[in-house]
Amino acid sequence: MVIAARGSSDNAGRYAQYLLGAANGLPVSLTTPSLFSIYQQPPRFAPNTLVLGISQSGKSPDIVSVLAEAQRQGQLTAALTNIPNSDLAQSSDHVIDLCAGDERSIAATKTYTGELLAVALLSSLLADDKERLASLHEIPARVQETLSLNSGAALIAERYRYMADCVVIGRGYNYASAFEIALKLKELTYTIAEPYSSADFLHGPLALIQHGFPAIVVAPAGALSQEMERFVRQLQQREAEILCISNDPAILAYGHRQLPLPSLPEWLSPIAAVVPGQLFAMHLAYAKNYDPDHPRGLRKVTETR
Amino acid sequence: MVIAARGSSDNAGRYAQYLLGAANGLPVSLTTPSLFSIYQQPPRFAPNTLVLGISQSGKSPDIVSVLAEAQRQGQLTAALTNIPNSDLAQSSDHVIDLCAGDERSIAATKTYTGELLAVALLSSLLADDKERLASLHEIPARVQETLSLNSGAALIAERYRYMADCVVIGRGYNYASAFEIALKLKELTYTIAEPYSSADFLHGPLALIQHGFPAIVVAPAGALSQEMERFVRQLQQREAEILCISNDPAILAYGHRQLPLPSLPEWLSPIAAVVPGQLFAMHLAYAKNYDPDHPRGLRKVTETR
Repeated sequence: MVIAARGSSDNAGRYAQYLLGAANGLPVSLTTPSLFSIYQQPPRFAPNTLVLGISQSGKSPDIVSVLAEAQRQGQLTAALTNIPNSDLAQSSDHVIDLCAGDERSIAATKTYTGELLAVALLSSLLADDKERLASLHEIPARVQETLSLNSGAALIAERYRYMADCVVIGRGYNYASAFEIALKLKELTYTIAEPYSSADFLHGPLALIQHGFPAIVVAPAGALSQEMERFVRQLQQREAEILCISNDPAILAYGHRQLPLPSLPEWLSPIAAVVPGQLFAMHLAYAKNYDPDHPRGLRKVTETR
Repeated sequence: MVIAARGSSDNAGRYAQYLLGAANGLPVSLTTPSLFSIYQQPPRFAPNTLVLGISQSGKSPDIVSVLAEAQRQGQLTAALTNIPNSDLAQSSDHVIDLCAGDERSIAATKTYTGELLAVALLSSLLADDKERLASLHEIPARVQETLSLNSGAALIAERYRYMADCVVIGRGYNYASAFEIALKLKELTYTIAEPYSSADFLHGPLALIQHGFPAIVVAPAGALSQEMERFVRQLQQREAEILCISNDPAILAYGHRQLPLPSLPEWLSPIAAVVPGQLFAMHLAYAKNYDPDHPRGLRKVTETR
C-alpha cells in the first residue's frame, strides 16, 4: 500500500503505516509526491498495490497527480477525503467519505481524528476482526473521557507561556501523534515544535537536551511502555522539562505536568492521545495572546505542486 | 525496495527514495523498524523486494531485526555499511562496503556523503547508464570546489551566533540535504533546526515565519528551480532571514547570506550540497564556543531497540 498525503493527513498516513503493517501485515509506504508532479519521473508501483490519497479538501495537485499516475498504471486507487466530489475523489476508484462535516478550523482537528478512525475501520474490516470492529464503538466515550480528564489543560498551558521551542516524542502507533501535536503547536502558537521517534532522537538530537528543555512525550501504555519509560528516564537525567501524555502511571510519574488519557488499546490510543495535545495547543495560543482561529499566513486549503 | 536506517543513514535513505524512484522507476519505502523489533508484528514484504539496511556501524539492533526478518521471508537483502563484518552485514545476502575509513567524528560527515555516493553508484549500475557512471568521477573535484567556494563559511557563521532555532528547507533530491544539515546543526550547535520539504512547509508550518526568522534553503538548480524560487519569494515577503545553499543565481539573490555550490547535475547535487551545511554547522559550533568533536551526550554508535 502506498499513501500520498500532506500535513495532518500525512500524519494519519503514519498511523496507517503502523496499523496496517502490524494488524494486516501490509507493507505501507509514504510516497514522494514531487516525483509524480514536478520531476514527472514516477516509480512503477509493485503489482497489487493499493494507492491511497488522504486529503481533507481533496484538492492539492501534487497528491492528485500521484493518484492519476496510479490509475494510469492500472493500480487500485482510493481517496480518503471529506469532499467526496473533489479532484482527488474523481481520480480514485473508491472514495472513503470522512463524513466529518464542514471543517471550519484552519488547523485540522476533527478531520484528523476522523481520518484515524477511518484507517482503523479499514484495517479492522480488511482483517475481518469482529472484536476490533466492536472496540471502535468505544471511541466516542473514550474521547469524551479524555476531554473531561484534561479540563486542567488551560492551567498547564500557563506554565509554557514563554516556551519558544520544544520536542514532541512518540513511537510506534503514536509516532503520528507526536507529528500531529507538533504541527498544531507550530500552526497555533508559532512554537518551534519538532516531532521525533524516541529511537531517532537517541541517534543525534538528544544533544539538544539540557536543563529545562521542554519535551512533550506521548506514551500510552502498550508494547512500547518499557522502552518509553527508559527513554523518559534519560530525559529526566538530563533535566529536561517533561510534559507527559499517557495513561501509564509509571510514565506519568516522570512528568513535571501530566495530560492524562483514559484506558484504551494501544492501536486505538492515537485517536485519544492527540486530543490533549490539540487542547494544549489551543490553550497555549490563548496564553500567548494569539487567536487559534486565525493562524497567521495560513488558509484552509493549501495547494502545492 | 525497502530501506531500514536511522539518523544520517536514514537521510541517505531519503536520497535513495528519490534517486531510485526517478532514475530506476523503483518504489522505495523507508520502513518502520519498531514493527519488527518491539511490536514483533512485521509486515509481509511484497514479492521481489530488496531490503536494504544502511548503517555506518552496522550495529543498531532495530535495523538488524528488519534485515533478519527479510531473510526469514526469503527476500533479497543488502547492507550498506562501513563495517563489513558487522551484525547488519552478517544478516544480509550482499554487503556494500562504504570503504570510508574509520569514522572518528561523532557527527557523521564522510560516511554520509559516502552513503550518498554508494546509492548513486548502485542506481547508475542498475540502470546500466554509462553517462551517469562517468559523471560520478566528477564528484571529488566538485566537492573540492565546494570547499573552496565556501571558505567564507566561518564569517557567515558569526552572524548566527545567537540563533536559537531555524528551519532547513529542501525538496526532491535535496529533501535529504535539509534533513542532514538540520541534524548536524542539532548535534553540534544545539540549535533547534527543523527540516522541511517546501511543500509540507506550506501546509501549516509557514505560520512560524516572521521578521528575522532564520530559514536555510537548499535549492540547487534543477527541475525544482521555479518552485523553489517561488517559495523563497514567499519567505522574503514574510521577512524571513534567508541563508541560501545553491548554484542558481536567481535563488542565491534572495539570500541575506549565500553558501554557493559548483555546477552539478541535480541528481548528484546532494553530495555537494550537504558540505557547506556541514561546514556551517562546524563553524557555528565554534562561534557558540562548543567543541564539535565532543557533542554533549552522544556516543559514536547508538544502539536502539
